[in-house]
Amino acid sequence: MSADEAAKLIPSGVNVGMSGFTGAGYPKAIPVALAKHIKSVHDQGKPFRISVWTGASTAPELDGVLAEVDGIEMRLPYQSDPVCRQKINSGQMHYMDIHLSHVAQFAWFGFFGKLDIAVIEVAGILEDGRLIPAASVGNNKTWIDQADKVIIEVNHKLSEKLEGMHDIYYGTALPPNRKPIMMTEPDQRIGEPYLRCPLDKIIAIVETNETDRVNKFTEPDETSKRIAKHILDFFSKEVAEGRLPKNLLPLQSGVGNIANAVMAGLNEGEFENLKSYTEVIQDGMLGMIKSGKLVSASATSLSLSPDGLKELNDNIDFYRERIILRTQEISNHPEIVRRLGIIAINGMIEADIYGNVNSTHIMGSSIMNGIGGSGDFARNGYMSFFVTPSTAKNGAISAIVPMVSHVDHTEHDVQIIVTEQGLADLRGLSPRQRAICIIENCAHPDYKAALLDYFDRANNSGRPVHTPHILSEALSWHERYEKTGHM
Amino acid sequence: MSADEAAKLIPSGVNVGMSGFTGAGYPKAIPVALAKHIKSVHDQGKPFRISVWTGASTAPELDGVLAEVDGIEMRLPYQSDPVCRQKINSGQMHYMDIHLSHVAQFAWFGFFGKLDIAVIEVAGILEDGRLIPAASVGNNKTWIDQADKVIIEVNHKLSEKLEGMHDIYYGTALPPNRKPIMMTEPDQRIGEPYLRCPLDKIIAIVETNETDRVNKFTEPDETSKRIAKHILDFFSKEVAEGRLPKNLLPLQSGVGNIANAVMAGLNEGEFENLKSYTEVIQDGMLGMIKSGKLVSASATSLSLSPDGLKELNDNIDFYRERIILRTQEISNHPEIVRRLGIIAINGMIEADIYGNVNSTHIMGSSIMNGIGGSGDFARNGYMSFFVTPSTAKNGAISAIVPMVSHVDHTEHDVQIIVTEQGLADLRGLSPRQRAICIIENCAHPDYKAALLDYFDRANNSGRPVHTPHILSEALSWHERYEKTGHM
Repeated sequence: MSADEAAKLIPSGVNVGMSGFTGAGYPKAIPVALAKHIKSVHDQGKPFRISVWTGASTAPELDGVLAEVDGIEMRLPYQSDPVCRQKINSGQMHYMDIHLSHVAQFAWFGFFGKLDIAVIEVAGILEDGRLIPAASVGNNKTWIDQADKVIIEVNHKLSEKLEGMHDIYYGTALPPNRKPIMMTEPDQRIGEPYLRCPLDKIIAIVETNETDRVNKFTEPDETSKRIAKHILDFFSKEVAEGRLPKNLLPLQSGVGNIANAVMAGLNEGEFENLKSYTEVIQDGMLGMIKSGKLVSASATSLSLSPDGLKELNDNIDFYRERIILRTQEISNHPEIVRRLGIIAINGMIEADIYGNVNSTHIMGSSIMNGIGGSGDFARNGYMSFFVTPSTAKNGAISAIVPMVSHVDHTEHDVQIIVTEQGLADLRGLSPRQRAICIIENCAHPDYKAALLDYFDRANNSGRPVHTPHILSEALSWHERYEKTGHM
Repeated sequence: MSADEAAKLIPSGVNVGMSGFTGAGYPKAIPVALAKHIKSVHDQGKPFRISVWTGASTAPELDGVLAEVDGIEMRLPYQSDPVCRQKINSGQMHYMDIHLSHVAQFAWFGFFGKLDIAVIEVAGILEDGRLIPAASVGNNKTWIDQADKVIIEVNHKLSEKLEGMHDIYYGTALPPNRKPIMMTEPDQRIGEPYLRCPLDKIIAIVETNETDRVNKFTEPDETSKRIAKHILDFFSKEVAEGRLPKNLLPLQSGVGNIANAVMAGLNEGEFENLKSYTEVIQDGMLGMIKSGKLVSASATSLSLSPDGLKELNDNIDFYRERIILRTQEISNHPEIVRRLGIIAINGMIEADIYGNVNSTHIMGSSIMNGIGGSGDFARNGYMSFFVTPSTAKNGAISAIVPMVSHVDHTEHDVQIIVTEQGLADLRGLSPRQRAICIIENCAHPDYKAALLDYFDRANNSGRPVHTPHILSEALSWHERYEKTGHM
């Protein structure tokens, strides 16, 4: 049926589970039609809102249009849309920020209430009703399992040759009936290539013909290259000292240009026979697969630029053998992440001198995107990096502060901090030792003296000094930025 | 040999792994002798310090005496000794606070440097050299595996009938060689009852005859009983609504009187055939095993009062069938905690109105004990409670504050907050919804108006309101307490 007809099957007040993870695999027609419908209802003076659960971020055609018409009551678990963000920070919509490995199980447990409808993009439908997943898997399996009704978008733009790339694990259960997940290699298949969907759940099928909207990557800038170099040098040292195997351990890296630069660095570097076990495959990883440096990549989403997508489609038989797309509960599963010994590399907004990391909030109150899977990998991985340029806004903001304005990763979960200035290896250090290490290695020279001054005065304030602080000044850098435009 | 002779085998500058977890199973003679030796060296004007790694907290005979003579350079991963705490907070010794499930693996990975010597209390030695563990297992397996030299304390006061109660798992490995841990039931045995120790590592055996020092529990007070009742009522509601099985899921509960009160409440309540999968077995759990309410208990430590110890020893054959003591990497393992679906109940120092929890720091700078295993269970369990009386210091301190002064558990890991005032169920709520829920249900009446006032003003401050804050006031309650003695 048409998207307009399908959208009208979604009533106000329901919880809707939509496909989509980092701009890949989101439904492209129904959210747009639904937003139009919601606007017309609002124009009649009637309320209409739904709660939207996804895998992670989607695109303007989903988060953007629905937020624009004030159609979202509650959004979870991760978003990165500018309109959505503005509505959340102005108090017009609720947002709940959850570890990506927790979302599916909390839905099964009933912790978010009942899931009413699933809206899922697929690459195709088999004759027996099984679905060929699209460019991301995310929580699609769970949404289909949990929802009473399912709406399918078949995107003809997607190569049906994606068939066979996915690995959907159907071995999960509710406690007390859970079993070990029998995966011991990052590129091991443990499931099946299709999503199962009872035919009687399907209330609509809509056809589309559009590509995912993923921006072109910029070439790595000098800052990203320097961050990447610090990480690569550190890998070499760890290998030399026997704390990492020669081909490292499976790599996870967050989204964005720094992550891409690390991949570019690895692609030119000394390490061979690498594997990745991550959330998102970006262009950088594709390049590494092509060169042979990366033997295989496991993720839940293929988030490729137009160039990357062309490369994939042109060589789909080659990549299908080397890429596995899983459900996000498996790509981010604590059990697997710990067993495989993942090297976790994630971006952040700011870190404090004691190694607490803020990944989500600008100046303590304003959500940026969300925690995503960074906590899943940082907590359970073998080695955990957090990376950022040492300043933002042309130097007006220091990424190293006396106290972070929001904590997403505590001192207990942060091992290595990297900026273009250098790398702080916090393993085995107490808070006071961490402070010196972070300030000396990671702070921008313009802020180093002020940070050392804060630390020294906190150390000599007469207050306890396990974690020295001056409470009246701890958040003053953020206050100063808001008042003067400079920290 | 004598403890004095054995202690002299420990040189200055080494890393020493000692047994001990929550006041149980710590070596009783050697640390005292070592402290005496260190003092005599210091008296000659020479330096002498070691780093002390344990399972968790020990007793005055270990942490107390070594801290007293300034003999500890670095302490990890958890302590609760008053002298130790004072030395840490005055800057005289370093302390590194680590998730208990991380300690053993970080030692294998080499992240803390080389472990030189292990000092381990045991209940007995078999003819072939295998060791009967004492009242706690903690990290003993790892310390023996990793250390070059091992010193054994055989404590004759321990019933050799403990033999068979322990389950030491020898299936761990370094990535990329890790395998699934094949445990699916909380009372399943997956290891062997003895610690293996190569005979050529043993450089000394010392005999002792002393009981563990665990304080008598106070009868649950009114506050603890009310907290326990809120939790039990919540369990009943969750069972009625289908979100928990009738016999609940395996229980984890932290150390102390509130945890003991919850156990006492469960012992008088409606739930049958319970199991526990926790760190520490205290008197309350022993009572539940005796009554038959608790079918089995798995932990890494038996931390019993003198009365509890007598009860255990008098009925050791009964309890040995129902209690399993494991290594702490297994008792707290993310893989197992998630698979079994643990109900996690942990104490805290304070929570903020958005559900961030501080478990470790008084007024942001002063360490209390440490995070222990609370993060292992809160992050990976099925359902996560944090509990505290709503005030401390006779009402001078509110346990609910605008912003916590230190974060150990982020908003992403905290589901349910309980004080004697009530229970805040935060599942599925956004930060602003959480604030109302926590203030209304958990804050003490004396502080409720001030918290609501802060929240309202933050909401109307003109700043972004995903997580409303007034940065200049966020930590002002802690500042006020330090200035005036009252929040």
